[in-house]
Parts: sequence; C-alpha cells; structure tokens
Amino acid sequence: MRLQLTLALSVISATLTYSYPAMAQSGQPSGTENASSAQLRSDLATLRDAALSDDYAYQQLAHLTNIGPRSTGSPQAEAAVEYVAAEMRKLGLDVHLEEVKVPHWIRGEETAQLVEYPAQAPGSTQKIVLTALGGNHPTSAEGITAEVVVARSFDELKNMGREKVAGKIVLFNVLFDQQKAANGLAGAAYGEAVAYRGGGAKAAEALGAVASLVRSVGNADYRIPHTGFSEAANIPAGAVTSEDADLISRLVAEGKVRMHMVLTTHAGPEVVSHNVIADLKGSEHPEQIVIVSGHLDSWDLGTGAIDDGAGVAVAMEAAELMQRLHLHPQRTLRVIAWMDEENGGRGNKAYAKAHAVEFSQHVAAIESDNGAGHPMGFQAKINAQALPLLQPVQEVLQPIGANLIHLIERSPGTDIEPMAEAGVPTFGIMQDARTYFNYHHTAADTLDKVVPRELRENAAAMAVMGYALANLPQALPR
Amino acid sequence: MRLQLTLALSVISATLTYSYPAMAQSGQPSGTENASSAQLRSDLATLRDAALSDDYAYQQLAHLTNIGPRSTGSPQAEAAVEYVAAEMRKLGLDVHLEEVKVPHWIRGEETAQLVEYPAQAPGSTQKIVLTALGGNHPTSAEGITAEVVVARSFDELKNMGREKVAGKIVLFNVLFDQQKAANGLAGAAYGEAVAYRGGGAKAAEALGAVASLVRSVGNADYRIPHTGFSEAANIPAGAVTSEDADLISRLVAEGKVRMHMVLTTHAGPEVVSHNVIADLKGSEHPEQIVIVSGHLDSWDLGTGAIDDGAGVAVAMEAAELMQRLHLHPQRTLRVIAWMDEENGGRGNKAYAKAHAVEFSQHVAAIESDNGAGHPMGFQAKINAQALPLLQPVQEVLQPIGANLIHLIERSPGTDIEPMAEAGVPTFGIMQDARTYFNYHHTAADTLDKVVPRELRENAAAMAVMGYALANLPQALPR
Repeated sequence: MRLQLTLALSVISATLTYSYPAMAQSGQPSGTENASSAQLRSDLATLRDAALSDDYAYQQLAHLTNIGPRSTGSPQAEAAVEYVAAEMRKLGLDVHLEEVKVPHWIRGEETAQLVEYPAQAPGSTQKIVLTALGGNHPTSAEGITAEVVVARSFDELKNMGREKVAGKIVLFNVLFDQQKAANGLAGAAYGEAVAYRGGGAKAAEALGAVASLVRSVGNADYRIPHTGFSEAANIPAGAVTSEDADLISRLVAEGKVRMHMVLTTHAGPEVVSHNVIADLKGSEHPEQIVIVSGHLDSWDLGTGAIDDGAGVAVAMEAAELMQRLHLHPQRTLRVIAWMDEENGGRGNKAYAKAHAVEFSQHVAAIESDNGAGHPMGFQAKINAQALPLLQPVQEVLQPIGANLIHLIERSPGTDIEPMAEAGVPTFGIMQDARTYFNYHHTAADTLDKVVPRELRENAAAMAVMGYALANLPQALPR
Repeated sequence: MRLQLTLALSVISATLTYSYPAMAQSGQPSGTENASSAQLRSDLATLRDAALSDDYAYQQLAHLTNIGPRSTGSPQAEAAVEYVAAEMRKLGLDVHLEEVKVPHWIRGEETAQLVEYPAQAPGSTQKIVLTALGGNHPTSAEGITAEVVVARSFDELKNMGREKVAGKIVLFNVLFDQQKAANGLAGAAYGEAVAYRGGGAKAAEALGAVASLVRSVGNADYRIPHTGFSEAANIPAGAVTSEDADLISRLVAEGKVRMHMVLTTHAGPEVVSHNVIADLKGSEHPEQIVIVSGHLDSWDLGTGAIDDGAGVAVAMEAAELMQRLHLHPQRTLRVIAWMDEENGGRGNKAYAKAHAVEFSQHVAAIESDNGAGHPMGFQAKINAQALPLLQPVQEVLQPIGANLIHLIERSPGTDIEPMAEAGVPTFGIMQDARTYFNYHHTAADTLDKVVPRELRENAAAMAVMGYALANLPQALPR
C-alpha cells in the first residue's frame, strides 16, 4: 500500500442494513430464485468454513517471504512471479504473464551522523538512523554536510522562507496521530503524515534546501525507519526514525546542528517484469471477469508479508478453495498478482492499457492491500443499488465479523483504480489496521506479523466475495 | 543492566507487613523517638511531594541522551562524567572522580546475508539483521561464510555433536518468554534467554563452530537486534533479530542455508575513565555513607535512557531535592554515577578496591538499574531484622504505590554487588519492567521511552529511601 489515504477511515462505522425493494414488491422471490439463492448461500458457507481451516494462504505467504524482499526489478520479484504462476498452474488455472516495464531502484549506502550539536562530546559524532525514500535523488558517495532546520508543517517551512532554508537540510517533524490509529482511523493518521513523505522534498527544494528528511510515517517506537514513495525532486529525500526526529528537534531548539548524510540510491535501467494473470474459467459466462488480487512487489527493507504478500496469498487461496471444493464459478475468476504497486503503479497501468476495451466485461475487482489483520468487511466503490445483491455475502461473513460494506467515493485499492475509474465495481478488504502502520514499509514487515487465524479470515472474505460476484444471477449494476 | 537475572522475579509479591517488636515491648516509643520519627515522616513526605513535581531528573536525562551513546572508553562517556560532576558541584556537593581503567570496545561493520538457501532467487541474497555482542571475536574485513545450524538449547547443540557443528555457524534460537514478561516476570524471562547470549559462543566454539549467533534477548517484534555482554570466545559472537532467527530456522528446516557475515569489532587500548563520586556531607555522622546510584555508561546502539541514564538522573535528583529543600542528611549521602556496568563492571571493582576498608561505615547502598517504569518498591539484600526500621519509607511511598520491600538473596544491582557481598545493606528500585526488555540494549533505548511522571516517581523512591537511610536514628542491622 503506497499512498492510499482513506482506507480504514471509517472502520468503526455500523453495519449497513438494507431493505430489499425487489423482493418486497413480489412478496418473496420466485421458486427458482429461491433455490438458486439458497444454493449460493450454502456454497459461500462451505467456502468460508473451508477457508477457516486451510493453511494454503499461510504456506504461500511463508514461501513468498522466504524468497525475500520483492522490490520491483529485483531477481526476488521475478522469482515470486514465476512461483505464483507455477502454483496457479498446479491448481489447473489458465495462467499467463503480462509484461510490465518497471524501474529497478537499488538502495545504496544510507548513513548519517550529527557532526556538530549542542552537548557534543569532543571528537564524537552521533548516529542518525534513516532510510532513503523511493524517488530519492542520491548524494555523492562522499555525501553532504549541512545545517539542519526543522519544520512542523508546510506552512512553517514557507514562513521560514528561502533565507533560512537555502543550503540547509530540512527535517519535517510531523507526528503520526497515534490516537487516531488506536481508534480505528489509521488510514486518516497515515494520510495526514504521508503528505510530507510524498511532497516534502519538492517543497524543500523549492526553497533551496540541499536535502529533505521526514519523520517516519508510522506509529511504533522502535527506532526503525519507514520507507515509501516520494515525488521525485532534485535533492536527496530520506526518512529518519521518530526517535531521531525527536533528538534532532531537541538539539536544534538548543543550538546549531549540522549533519552529514549519505544516501547513494541507484536507479538502474528499466527491467521487464510481469503481472501474473491466472484464470479459473467461468462455466457459464467465461467472458465475464471477477478479479481477486493483491500486489506481489514489496519494499526492499522487509520481506513484504503484510504489504502485500498476504493480499496475493488470500487471492491465490480463493482459487485453491474453489478448485479443491469443486465449486466452479459461473463467471471467470481471475487471480492477479500485481507488479509495482509501490514504486509507481506500472502494473495496473499496463493492465488497464491492455484490457481497457474489456472493462465492460469486468464484472468486479477485489484487492486486498491493507495488511492481514482481522477483516471487518469491505470498502466498496459501487453503485448503492448493488448493495441488496450482496446480502448473501454479508450473511455468510457475519459469523466471522467480516460483514461490513462501507461505500467510498474513491478506489478501494491502488491497482484496481483504473477499473474503478472506468466504472467497474471495486472492493477492498477492510482489515483492522490499528497496528498496520507500526510495520508498514519497514524492515519489520515479516511473516511473524501475520496471525494465521486472521489470514484465514481474510481468505474467507476474499473467497466468499469473489465467488458471490462470479455466481450472482445478475452482475452488479454500475 | 547486564546479566542481572533475578530482578523483577517476584514483582507480583504482596506488600510485606511486619510486627514491631521493639515498640510492642515498650508499649509505644519514647517521646523523643516519637518526635524524631514524626519529623522524619514529614521530611520524607516533603521529599516525595517535591519529587512528583520536579523535572530535574528528566532534564538531566535529556542532556545525557543528547550527548549520545556512552559506551565505556568513548568520548561521550567521558563527557557524561564531566557533565555529572559539574552538575553535582553546582548543587554544592563535594565531588571527585575516581579512576577506572576501562576497555574501549568499538563496533565495526556488522552485516550478514544468506548466500544460499531454499527459495533463493537466482542472483540474489537475503539480508540478515544482526549486531555484534560485547566480547565478540572479530571476523576479518572480508568476513566468513559457512553453513548455519540451529539449536534450541545447549542440550540440542551437544546432541548434534562436533560432527554436525564443526565448521558451521551456530544459531541459538531460544525464545524470550513473552508470557512471563507480560505477567511481571520479565527478569526471569531475561535470565532464561540471556544464558545463551552469555555462554553460547563458548559452547559453540567447544564443538568447533566458526561463529555463534543468538536470537536477540528481548520481547519486541520490530526487527531490532539486542546487544549485550558475551563471555569471550575465539569465534565471532552476534545477535540476530527475532525475525531473522525465525527466517533462518524456517529455511534450515527446508534445506541448506549458508551465510556470509562480517563483524569487525575492534578492542582499542584501555582508557582511563571515572566513577563520579559526589558527597552531600552528613551533618552528624559524615563518616557514615549512604549511596544513591545508577550507571553512566550505556551500550552504544541507543542513547542509554532506560539503561541507565535514568538511574543516574534519579540519584542526582535525590541530592538536588535535599539541597533545594534544605533537608540535610545526618549521614553522608553519596551520589555515584558508575562507569562500565555493561562491559565488565570495572567501575564497581575499582570502587570496592579503593573503599573496602570503609565498607563497615557504608550504611547502605541503592542502585536503580532496571529502567524507568513505575517503581513498585525495592528489592533488598538486607537483614530481615532491619525491616521494621523501614516502615516510615513504606508509609510515605504507599500513596504512589512504591512501598513493596522484597527481600532477595543476591545483590539487587551489579555495581553494588561488592558491597552486598561485604554485608552492606543494598537496595534496588523495583520498576515495572514489563516493557523494559523491548528496548533493553537496542538502538531504541532513547529518551522517549521514559515517561516523565514515572521518572518522577522513581526520583521520589530514591530520595525518600536515601534520606531515610541517612537519617534513621540507628543504622540498619547487618
């Protein structure tokens, strides 16, 4: 998950309830509809229960993290592509890879020290823990040395003006709102702080700064930096830990602080990578597509368990469950493992380019890219008229507390955004994200952060919604 | 805190209650004793209340962490010595520095990668996050490469035998018992796991291993390594994060794993450093000494806030409060900022050597070296007959929940151990340590981990106990 700002904004919202005008008009559904509906509910319940005792997704996720970090353009990302394709073929799906040209961004040395500061012991420096942001403009191998100024907002930076900023390293020390995150508004807290990660370097550059640092966007206190995407500027862009942001701010309040920093990232030539497309052909409407998906690439610091190996793994399991249980979708269920969600979204752009003419036959698309916490239901960018049709999904997911459907105005996932904009009904699994931003984009995004039981719940949510969308008598209205 | 195993072992123990035989025999204390006792209680309450609204300790701690890590032999450690001495002189104390020859251990490069493992992508390696332990025998600059074997206990290693261990890197993957830590038995959990940090390298070396790694001893999951002391062996000794221990163990279960590692620590020549000794002369028995203390050195990864800048800061505040409130101790209150608790204990050994003949006049010694969490009272290695005399302390600290006195058999602090062994009554503040080992010996031991209100409570506990020991009509029986 890259710059998705609104996810989990309203996870506390009540379960939506609906009246059912069509059924109300006719008194009750026809006998055929009734039988078909009862069968669907029964099949969905079978999928749910099977998911809750299935370790397929966890085993897939373990393998993806065993491969290691899967940053775009890396050998690990391509090994993961081949692996997912092979696993889907094993299940009997129709698999092909679709080319995506991706950047190959390589992290280099990243070190920093305070070389002058109040309280400095003679002959000593003090280490600063930081990481380069995607989009970083590298320093030379020798690095740069400059005074540090601290801004707590874009406005504060503007008020300093070029006179105070030019030639300096700017540190944006903007707090992640831990209270909001604890109260289920992690997405909102993230959105507020990530604006500085995204736009800080450009704002600092505009006033003549020589480098830009942000306080890491996240809510843990273990001195780990959080990387992520930054709009490209012509000055270096990094993230320091919250502890280091505090230290620098304390010292700057007391006197002059000068920092030496080295951020030698390297942008290699573009690399050919792939989206993995695996179709479980529909028995009645093979031309109609329902997508279940997550993104396969990760940042390079961790091994991409919660962001977003988990999303890929639960999408894979949706197909595994249907094949194992012989529950054949009437429409085509398409598993997609997206490439390059994190570093520019080239995977979803390539898919949109290649498939835009078929979007009218794309009945719906689901992406899971908000971690692997307990799923509370779905965020959905759909026509409200479609809600009554989803009642069977809500009923079947109610026992595991995954029955919310929360309508939102923007795409519930980065990779399904082109489809959302083209009017395709889109869904994102809405996980409990209270601890998601503790680990997001850090070295600590590793397998142990995923609770097997919660991953199974996510697989249940993905399989149940995916199968329902593929087998509802009528496609969702747009 | 280095290898203190029993601290917080029994923090759940009930408040001890006592009968008071002396008072019971005489019906009630004499009028003079009564007045003196009432005055002492009143003075102790004054100290407690002043501590609870005093930010002196926090400001001192902030400065110590602003200096940076204070590992033995570093310029920062010596700057801290000079700083504490100057601050104590400002208060009017009689200050001198006592020489301590300390090792100057310098962390070098510390990197590791898996170079062969199941799930490896062609042309890729996987980063392992680790840190060198104190006592590490360095690798060459080029490092070493060897297969990894995993042992979950010393017994398991022995059972593997030389045949399976020789030429390999041994990983001791021994879990820190998080359940125990959550239930107030953090010290016990630490004790169980730290045996491998302390003795793992020697055990691995004995079977011909080329290096020894331990799972970090701590209970957080943010992929941060915990350093600490290891008995010197002739093979490299490091600690990997819990996440990396999990990863390696998973991979070793699937097939062959080879690792390349570089741990180029460097042991410089010994450096002259100092214990800071600051006396607030006793008005009636200046020759009798009551010590309030913490250790000034820290590990080099963090800035030593909870281990143990906080201990030094609350000891300093004990003197500050007495001076500011004009509460003059009758015995001499001696503030000590110990050097080299972490890397061999040379500070306390030097003090014992210089002052052993005066230990009969050392009435009591307190050390705080278990973090800065809420104090629940004290661990004490004292004669049980002394308990009734401490009733005023317990009464005055009861309102802040710091009134437990828990008798233990071994020294309640590393630096006061020589005194404890010589029969001097010794005390350690018994903090709530449930999160202490999340941060202990990591880069995340920083100022923000200290809650100002809790630090004030610790200052209250130190000042109240220190003043009581200095002013009780009779010294504690030994």
